[in-house]
Amino acid sequence: MLSLARKPLGVFDSGVGGLTVLSALRRALPNESYLYLGDTARVPYGSKPQEMVRDFAAQISDALLQRGVKGIVIACNTASAASLPALADALPVPVWGVVEPGVEAALLRGRGGRIGVLGTVGTIRARVYQDRLERAGAATWAKACPLFVPIVEEGISDSTIARLVADYYLADRPGLDTVILGCTHYPALRATLQQALGPDVGMVDSAESTAAVVARDLRVMGLAAPPGQAGSVRHLVTGDVDSYRHTARILHGPDGPIERIDLAPRITAAG
Amino acid sequence: MLSLARKPLGVFDSGVGGLTVLSALRRALPNESYLYLGDTARVPYGSKPQEMVRDFAAQISDALLQRGVKGIVIACNTASAASLPALADALPVPVWGVVEPGVEAALLRGRGGRIGVLGTVGTIRARVYQDRLERAGAATWAKACPLFVPIVEEGISDSTIARLVADYYLADRPGLDTVILGCTHYPALRATLQQALGPDVGMVDSAESTAAVVARDLRVMGLAAPPGQAGSVRHLVTGDVDSYRHTARILHGPDGPIERIDLAPRITAAG
Repeated sequence: MLSLARKPLGVFDSGVGGLTVLSALRRALPNESYLYLGDTARVPYGSKPQEMVRDFAAQISDALLQRGVKGIVIACNTASAASLPALADALPVPVWGVVEPGVEAALLRGRGGRIGVLGTVGTIRARVYQDRLERAGAATWAKACPLFVPIVEEGISDSTIARLVADYYLADRPGLDTVILGCTHYPALRATLQQALGPDVGMVDSAESTAAVVARDLRVMGLAAPPGQAGSVRHLVTGDVDSYRHTARILHGPDGPIERIDLAPRITAAG
Repeated sequence: MLSLARKPLGVFDSGVGGLTVLSALRRALPNESYLYLGDTARVPYGSKPQEMVRDFAAQISDALLQRGVKGIVIACNTASAASLPALADALPVPVWGVVEPGVEAALLRGRGGRIGVLGTVGTIRARVYQDRLERAGAATWAKACPLFVPIVEEGISDSTIARLVADYYLADRPGLDTVILGCTHYPALRATLQQALGPDVGMVDSAESTAAVVARDLRVMGLAAPPGQAGSVRHLVTGDVDSYRHTARILHGPDGPIERIDLAPRITAAG
């Protein structure tokens, strides 16, 4: 397995948000080589039909597999919800999403009270987290927070504006036990949200939960990079390289060379 | 020309923002039939490469022409900048964009002082307005305001949050004579921006300027709908119908039936 273990881990997102997952993976698994693909030409996925998002995820997986990845992390809530089961069935390598680890962590950390979910309009409307939590018996409260992503990308996550917007979104919340940060951008708002929620509410960061699950699974499967391997990061983007570099810096995304690529549409049986 | 004059006017945008242009057109030309196409499956255009936006605009124009429009208004700053000259050359009907009318109005209303431009990251980075204004001899100051679109779509354009965000974006402005609202969402923020800018700064709304130019040109060309014709609006969207309806309502977009359509990619010589 050693030659396979040395191969890179593929990580993808509709844009830059998945860089928080990549950062968490780098902390949990510093010896891995990472190939990050940001589909910035087609961001955001949240407002697009599910079949379209599944097609995009399949195209991206093909591109990553062609580049020899040993496994794929779907670092995007919308794409995880839309395509994880199909990709896990179809691909010859292990595939992880960000939703299940977040749900598991919230159920584990919760004390039986109501679990809050914050996310994009797409994630909240598709009930990505709520359905899974409720099937496990948890009561939920969910809120779409469309201003959070641009606040993070502006680099004003710790401002008065961020705090007022957090208060605005949380104004009608019931008593909450735990809150899931159900969007890959939101970890940047962690301090502001903790202040708005008060110290008694726990917070689950899907990025960290996912990194912990991937680290455990790679070890179990004997696929973790050998301890002596120097970790590395390469970025592939479908849109503009300069604007990606700019936002990646604000999100503290790991450094590495950035290359622009075009994705090939799949020829489907129906087409 | 009468049979042609009775035909609908096509209006398109990457999403819902162009509805402010549609509203301005309805006020200026209440007897027209409008066919509005929102490419909500592929919004936003601002972060996408110019050739891609040009392809999208060509596909949309084909779809509108197939439905018999007598002219096309590109109600999107990014698409206007990327594709107006090419579409105007290629199409058998008149084509208008939102950029030139905004620039003309600012130059006309300005008193020789500096002209400010507010827009999305894509519009500001592409210098869509700045280059045209500076070629005409005007001094400019420009600011990308990525929080404004989600503030408008949240329906909180007149809130404390909106005012703080306006102050944040305008904090480092020099003395300004006139400000161009260079994004189709921004007219909703007009009152808040006027407060933030103070009463002495003029404001140019590209939507209104464009509607005035289209109204004048249709009359000159003999293409305006006859006065007795009852105006109407039909909406075509490439993404989710419910989420379009929701945001259209917040933007006070004109009512009318909404239909979901798929756009056919063009077969290009290179493909």
